[in-house]
Amino acid sequence: MRATTIHAPFDVRLSEVPDPVIEDPTDAVIEIVAGCICGSDLWPYRGENKITPGSRIGHEYVGIVREVGADVRTVKPGDFVVTPFVASDGTCPNCLAGYQSVCQNIVGIGGPRADGGQGEWAKVPYADGTLVATPDVPDDALIPSLLTLSDVMGTGWHAARAARVEPGHTVVVVGDGAVGLCGVLSAVRMGAERVVALSRHESRQKIAKEFGATHIIAERGDAARDAVLELTDGVGADAVLECVGTDQSFKTAFAVARAGSTVGFVGVPHGVEIPIGRMFGKNVGLAGGVAPVRAYLPELMADVLAGEINPGLVFDLELPLADVAEGYKAMHERRAIKTLLRP
Amino acid sequence: MRATTIHAPFDVRLSEVPDPVIEDPTDAVIEIVAGCICGSDLWPYRGENKITPGSRIGHEYVGIVREVGADVRTVKPGDFVVTPFVASDGTCPNCLAGYQSVCQNIVGIGGPRADGGQGEWAKVPYADGTLVATPDVPDDALIPSLLTLSDVMGTGWHAARAARVEPGHTVVVVGDGAVGLCGVLSAVRMGAERVVALSRHESRQKIAKEFGATHIIAERGDAARDAVLELTDGVGADAVLECVGTDQSFKTAFAVARAGSTVGFVGVPHGVEIPIGRMFGKNVGLAGGVAPVRAYLPELMADVLAGEINPGLVFDLELPLADVAEGYKAMHERRAIKTLLRP
Repeated sequence: MRATTIHAPFDVRLSEVPDPVIEDPTDAVIEIVAGCICGSDLWPYRGENKITPGSRIGHEYVGIVREVGADVRTVKPGDFVVTPFVASDGTCPNCLAGYQSVCQNIVGIGGPRADGGQGEWAKVPYADGTLVATPDVPDDALIPSLLTLSDVMGTGWHAARAARVEPGHTVVVVGDGAVGLCGVLSAVRMGAERVVALSRHESRQKIAKEFGATHIIAERGDAARDAVLELTDGVGADAVLECVGTDQSFKTAFAVARAGSTVGFVGVPHGVEIPIGRMFGKNVGLAGGVAPVRAYLPELMADVLAGEINPGLVFDLELPLADVAEGYKAMHERRAIKTLLRP
Repeated sequence: MRATTIHAPFDVRLSEVPDPVIEDPTDAVIEIVAGCICGSDLWPYRGENKITPGSRIGHEYVGIVREVGADVRTVKPGDFVVTPFVASDGTCPNCLAGYQSVCQNIVGIGGPRADGGQGEWAKVPYADGTLVATPDVPDDALIPSLLTLSDVMGTGWHAARAARVEPGHTVVVVGDGAVGLCGVLSAVRMGAERVVALSRHESRQKIAKEFGATHIIAERGDAARDAVLELTDGVGADAVLECVGTDQSFKTAFAVARAGSTVGFVGVPHGVEIPIGRMFGKNVGLAGGVAPVRAYLPELMADVLAGEINPGLVFDLELPLADVAEGYKAMHERRAIKTLLRP
């Protein structure tokens, strides 16, 4: 089969790789219906993370189960499934507590033990603890939204949950990538009264508004802080979603957080220095991390199937898998927010 | 009147200072019944914080209201009151949200605008937003416990609240000072099933046990972490209270926190580097800060008056105010956990 491999910065290719086979009785083999490129894939693409030349890349996909190991109970061949970006056993204390992303036997999707999503087929371990199937094979129009549940929508949801968004809140979302936009959608869905998206890009502002953002702030840094404080009579936001992961974005998040609020963070931190003195003085908490999207999948899947949310709007570029290199390039150059790939 | 002043490291004195007078209509003047020395007073005492020679020190006391300004409504002369370690207006958005320690008009007790508690009398601003009176003048035996509500008990409570202690939890308390011990008491009162006190000192271990600690771990650093992990089958604690404020104590706190838990922190951070990568990877949150003890005062006062909690056990040295210098020395040399001073 064909799957995406990375060889050097800015060099991703569709390569011939071995077909996946069931090895363990808890494995499943899936024919991929759609995969996509994650903002975090751009870190190695840009050479900012270490690359093992020829290694697989990609960790978000949906597909049809074609084969399962002898111990698999919850999915069967023919099921349409969403695969979270990490595989989890579903039985360890962390999984049972709803933190499958910290599973004691975690397996990264797109690593040596589980095929990535930017390919034609995938083997996934711990099928019962990992996969969630739809009741029926869904309409093609729902594929993009279901695909977001493998990562970005669950991650935006986690940011909002970690930030303890409540009905009536004023929520600030730092970051207008796919995760940030899904954070906007999540805050709205949780009943926030005002959702402020920090975004400079018109195409992203548009989606933020479609997701229910009530305010757009195009400024950054101190100017963004001042705009939020003006909007909140100097008090600050009731909840803040940090969906970038840079020191600047964390600074902005803490600067706009009101006393007693929580910054929910889901952007992989890169060179971030936490303002512990400010946290202490203002009683601003920090919570979040690698999103347990598996925990949120049943609820969010039901919302997508019922038409309550349409997170698939974050895909503004769809390409055949053969053009995966162009998909990366478009996201790197910010011509696309997020690229969907069809094998 | 006489009050404590600090002149240089290790030089505190009882000095003659002006009598307090009502200046603003929201002021109250209080005759101090008991004051005490805080662990945070030791920072300037040891020269680790900047000192203005001759400045007042102390911020914890209880007393009898002797005079109130024209606008004061909730306390009257003759009332026995507890004064939190900061004065708060009670009307700003932060106060109304229960974060009086981040009041927009905050006044530090023991600063230029509000007399400290290591003296004979005190003027306090924003009497209605700050003071809480007992229904009657309490029995002398309750004075130590009521005095802890001005700071350490409310602070330990805040650590447990911030860490989201719930019934059935396994809770680790890092720090065996008065605040850490009150953290133990708070976790027990909130229904924790197992409360693990990290303590090397026999006298403190004894109080921790009296407060309901089920386990004492005398080790530090990696050994303490290993002991907690052994106790929790490798999972870690459901909630962790950080009651010290050093980099080492934060490291220990995060090392023993299970996935999805929260480190509640109330120790003033000194040179702390937050392990953001670990927080992200394990989904461990951080919450807390300057405790809004005013918010907790009514509930904790009721508990003390009902004999449900006895936090006054943290006082293991009582001295006349004239011996305040010896009180500091005893705490600095760790001969005393906490010193109560009677004018």
